[in-house]
Amino acid sequence: MDSVKIQLAVDRVTIEEAIHIIAQAKESIDIIEIGTSLFKDYGLKALIDIDSTFDHLILADIKTIDEAEYEFRQMFENGADIATVMGASALETIRICQKTAKKYQKAYMIDTLEMSAEKITTLKEFEDAIICIHLPKDKSGDLQVFIKDFMTEHQFKNKLAVAGGVQLKDISLFKRLGIEIVVIGSSITKSNDIAASARNFKERMK
Amino acid sequence: MDSVKIQLAVDRVTIEEAIHIIAQAKESIDIIEIGTSLFKDYGLKALIDIDSTFDHLILADIKTIDEAEYEFRQMFENGADIATVMGASALETIRICQKTAKKYQKAYMIDTLEMSAEKITTLKEFEDAIICIHLPKDKSGDLQVFIKDFMTEHQFKNKLAVAGGVQLKDISLFKRLGIEIVVIGSSITKSNDIAASARNFKERMK
Repeated sequence: MDSVKIQLAVDRVTIEEAIHIIAQAKESIDIIEIGTSLFKDYGLKALIDIDSTFDHLILADIKTIDEAEYEFRQMFENGADIATVMGASALETIRICQKTAKKYQKAYMIDTLEMSAEKITTLKEFEDAIICIHLPKDKSGDLQVFIKDFMTEHQFKNKLAVAGGVQLKDISLFKRLGIEIVVIGSSITKSNDIAASARNFKERMK
Repeated sequence: MDSVKIQLAVDRVTIEEAIHIIAQAKESIDIIEIGTSLFKDYGLKALIDIDSTFDHLILADIKTIDEAEYEFRQMFENGADIATVMGASALETIRICQKTAKKYQKAYMIDTLEMSAEKITTLKEFEDAIICIHLPKDKSGDLQVFIKDFMTEHQFKNKLAVAGGVQLKDISLFKRLGIEIVVIGSSITKSNDIAASARNFKERMK
């Protein structure tokens, strides 16, 4: 298996600051995540400006929960390679995301934030989705325990991503668990030396 | 009791088109809803431009599901009077919305889209929230049956709003049920005569 992919999540900054942060980390990351707050603050301009500045894969963390066709079309027509949908949405909504991603030959990620175990089970039909195991920012908790419990309870064969305050010390576990994408935010973006922090994560992923 | 309030939901148009639509309906509506798609397409600019053009109460349909403090602060500091949070969020997230709304002396609406009956019960602690009973756009179903079933199952004492394809024929039921806010989108915005459609709704609400 290839080394784990680093997805850099950029949030709660201006577009200019986002570009400045990404530029410093760009050699060490695989996927740029346009964070939810960038969409809610700046709309599609955040996606278009960042996509036109870098050659990386772009994940649009749009957190669709309704109006799936419109939102996913907007993402894929404006440069996103992957778009996110809340697993807490109606199954119909997720099916529209799946269909729209297929039509544009792009990928979709299902965010399992705050889903019941029962509802998570219904996601099994989405075999082509990337499943994101996500500890909410608003909730405290141990990320490693949270991820291990999720994987023990739900045996997904999908590509898996993890998110929610990932730190350097978590990486060896995620490699062992076969995680495909690790979403890293403030551990890199809030670091005093962004380039060095990103490099440290990349080294650890190998 | 006062007559039911009309909340005009504007979605999937440019900011200029939104302002043009609202201008035609403005005499007959009580609350302007900046739709989720306007945030995801244009960010805060949609809120700021529309708020500075009209004197109405402004609801920001931001559909917060995480990062509640940041998102709600952005809404209330940029002109929103009411902001929305998904009931499907962690209770911690909704509590932060409640606290932030209180701090800014603004209101918050909990969107019950696609929640389990069990999870809806946990919302009872949010006595000051407006509860929105919401039939998802991506799902077909009879709105009147949906609303009646919800109200029979969950006896909220909160202010209630309804959303999801409201038509003129639905209004008398909503009045009877004591609904406070009726969210109307395409029945007005897609009408050939927006001013007349809005007036018809207003007449029916009395």
